[in-house]
Amino acid sequence: MERHLMEIILKTIGVIHTPFQETTGMPIQSARSDFEGSVEVDAEYLDGLDGIEEFSHIYLLYALHRAETNGPLKVQPFLDDRLHGIFATRFPMRPNPIGISVVRLTGRKGSILHFKGADMLDGTPLLDIKPYIPEFDIFDVEKIGWYQNRKHD
Amino acid sequence: MERHLMEIILKTIGVIHTPFQETTGMPIQSARSDFEGSVEVDAEYLDGLDGIEEFSHIYLLYALHRAETNGPLKVQPFLDDRLHGIFATRFPMRPNPIGISVVRLTGRKGSILHFKGADMLDGTPLLDIKPYIPEFDIFDVEKIGWYQNRKHD
Repeated sequence: MERHLMEIILKTIGVIHTPFQETTGMPIQSARSDFEGSVEVDAEYLDGLDGIEEFSHIYLLYALHRAETNGPLKVQPFLDDRLHGIFATRFPMRPNPIGISVVRLTGRKGSILHFKGADMLDGTPLLDIKPYIPEFDIFDVEKIGWYQNRKHD
Repeated sequence: MERHLMEIILKTIGVIHTPFQETTGMPIQSARSDFEGSVEVDAEYLDGLDGIEEFSHIYLLYALHRAETNGPLKVQPFLDDRLHGIFATRFPMRPNPIGISVVRLTGRKGSILHFKGADMLDGTPLLDIKPYIPEFDIFDVEKIGWYQNRKHD
């Protein structure tokens, strides 16, 4: 089987501020977090935010900048005590350190976005913002694998 | 305002095969696509797929490898005829060329995943796979901005 090695170079476009200096005690998913955070988008991208305040929920894409990328391919997620393939989990130590969180947008002042649902470290490098649109993002799911019988909650 | 420039280097971990050699005529979102595709994960990541077949829906994260990254910050999305900030749209020409699609997993043979919901080009470089879990990924949304009054469908 062919190997498809190619490098993709991304640039940070801002930074995410949250109450979390360490991963210990940090919420596991944005859907389970009531913590507030803010996104500081670099001034050169200001025009790209036009109209964003008209959405109640947005995706933040960011670099998991403190996560190891050469970790094991089978991991024990926070919510279970068994090993699962890294791609069957949202565990942060993964081959490409990209995190996704859907957060609730609570306000905008220029290039600063305030949100609820912080589940990432303070200082997290921002890579992208996309609008959350139910028609595109809500799916009728039948199977949720190990999560169905997870050991912790 | 400080600028947070930092490079994030990602590696492709496989490739996505779809019926689409060109963007013309390609579905606009996976939720609107019944087209089939497959993901060929590089052999070295095989263990990372353990248990993935127990999920009906997965996120594919990939490089928008043919999209311009220095395009305008206000764009006209496919579904509207007005200009919006790039971060208020899912338009592919964005500062960081990362695409996200939730697709329906229909089968697995070793390191090949078959899916429905193809909305990306054939040969798209794969960056990550994450399980779609309703409790984490379904949000009760109040405002969907320009999409509410979009001009096309």
